[in-house]
Amino acid sequence: MRRNEFQMRVNWGDTDKAGIVYYPNYFKWFDIAGHQFFRSIGLPPSELAVSKQIILPLLDVRCTFEKPLYYDDIITIKTVVSEISNKTIKLNHEVHRGDTRTGYGYEIRGWVQELEGKISAVPIPEDVKNILREDRLVENNQINPWLSA
Amino acid sequence: MRRNEFQMRVNWGDTDKAGIVYYPNYFKWFDIAGHQFFRSIGLPPSELAVSKQIILPLLDVRCTFEKPLYYDDIITIKTVVSEISNKTIKLNHEVHRGDTRTGYGYEIRGWVQELEGKISAVPIPEDVKNILREDRLVENNQINPWLSA
Amino acid sequence: MRRNEFQMRVNWGDTDKAGIVYYPNYFKWFDIAGHQFFRSIGLPPSELAVSKQIILPLLDVRCTFEKPLYYDDIITIKTVVSEISNKTIKLNHEVHRGDTRTGYGYEIRGWVQELEGKISAVPIPEDVKNILREDRLVENNQINPWLSA
Amino acid sequence: MRRNEFQMRVNWGDTDKAGIVYYPNYFKWFDIAGHQFFRSIGLPPSELAVSKQIILPLLDVRCTFEKPLYYDDIITIKTVVSEISNKTIKLNHEVHRGDTRTGYGYEIRGWVQELEGKISAVPIPEDVKNILREDRLVENNQINPWLSA
Repeated sequence: MRRNEFQMRVNWGDTDKAGIVYYPNYFKWFDIAGHQFFRSIGLPPSELAVSKQIILPLLDVRCTFEKPLYYDDIITIKTVVSEISNKTIKLNHEVHRGDTRTGYGYEIRGWVQELEGKISAVPIPEDVKNILREDRLVENNQINPWLSA
Repeated sequence: MRRNEFQMRVNWGDTDKAGIVYYPNYFKWFDIAGHQFFRSIGLPPSELAVSKQIILPLLDVRCTFEKPLYYDDIITIKTVVSEISNKTIKLNHEVHRGDTRTGYGYEIRGWVQELEGKISAVPIPEDVKNILREDRLVENNQINPWLSA
Repeated sequence: MRRNEFQMRVNWGDTDKAGIVYYPNYFKWFDIAGHQFFRSIGLPPSELAVSKQIILPLLDVRCTFEKPLYYDDIITIKTVVSEISNKTIKLNHEVHRGDTRTGYGYEIRGWVQELEGKISAVPIPEDVKNILREDRLVENNQINPWLSA
Repeated sequence: MRRNEFQMRVNWGDTDKAGIVYYPNYFKWFDIAGHQFFRSIGLPPSELAVSKQIILPLLDVRCTFEKPLYYDDIITIKTVVSEISNKTIKLNHEVHRGDTRTGYGYEIRGWVQELEGKISAVPIPEDVKNILREDRLVENNQINPWLSA
């Protein structure tokens, strides 16, 4: 199944008074990772919406927290397709700091068409399913001082 | 089991370019509802931390989305204890707009003691368990122009 | 000039690892206060947009920070019209915890019409200017356990 | 004076129902840019706090909005020291999409020492002032597929 990885920094504003990441921010990262995944397979959400009237609303999400994350941590978000049904896609997301996984979860997104203001789930086209099933990783190596500083 | 309810308004900043609530905000509300729940049973997190060195970190959360929420919607967040184990508490949260449930999920929080910089899960005291098991609803009726305007 | 006041609680997620409010949240509150102000004078933004195609985009904002705010603080946000020009409105916002002002600033919003996808600043109608100039306070007393708990 | 630049993508969650960036997010970017600036001059805030007990609290911030920003826009945040006083530093921030500046503003941060739980503004050391006065740009080129995809 298709996979995608990229790195981010934990920013000051991601923390709370316990000195660790405020948990709803995991879902901001999952959402960013979901959008980035579709970019990585050549189906950017901004183009899907315009050219095919397809949006990808969330149906179900979950996250299990294993270790705290701190300000300035460099994290890797690893995304992989875990299930493809007729009208939904399940993406598994994992958050890693170095060798340590700090949390994991999933997003289930619908494949939904918006026509004349009406929305309805529609079957995922076969060519999209074939892309999702490919065994391929896109690694977004961030070779930049922003991350290494 | 103990229950708690309160109302909030969906603010402009809670929406995204699809015109509906950006999903990670459900978890901000769950977190507010979790804190409000502990206030409603006489165990405000700010006091628990100071008087008993008890914090309530998240172990697992989930949300299922049923209907979109819009700017200016008045929502009711309904919280109920759904499981009490030796060292964890599960809170179920539901979000309603009028008679319609728009989403539901849960938070599993640990009962964790912080002593001399070290944290470890400890058994929930019996008197706390007894309060959690009470069949009682605290309804935080918001009789104010802010919500009715 | 018209004034509006309401109360909020500082939530856990509003803080950062310094144990105080993360400053961009002041602007979330200013935005909520701006929307609430227009509700309080009978011109809710959601209705303005639909009935008059009027939106109120931000042109300039500022905030000066005087004292830290902490988790669980009950704050009062005080809003007053400070300038009315031909096509803009300036709202001054102050944040108070009890008798202490913790920060203050302003929002300058345009009076902007959106017609057939095109937006342009238009003169504020005289009847709206008259409402803005009234010397009247709407106090949104929050008589509810959520705030007093 | 020292300058710093880096690029970011406007994420889905940065937008609101008007389809453009929700304005408090400019201040999240200013805060990220402020932290990144201190990293770029060899004084990461996380180290300053530990080795010198120096924190950099916000005293005053402002932003003027010129053009709307949209989902998926790649923006460059340009930061430059604009004033150095005895105990404060003023950073000017500009946000650009390609050749277009979409907004600009500033942060004034104090140079504050935290000793035994007490905080007080202290003079900025001469060696730090000398670094701040250098005419040098650190450009954080993001050579990565995440941005170019």
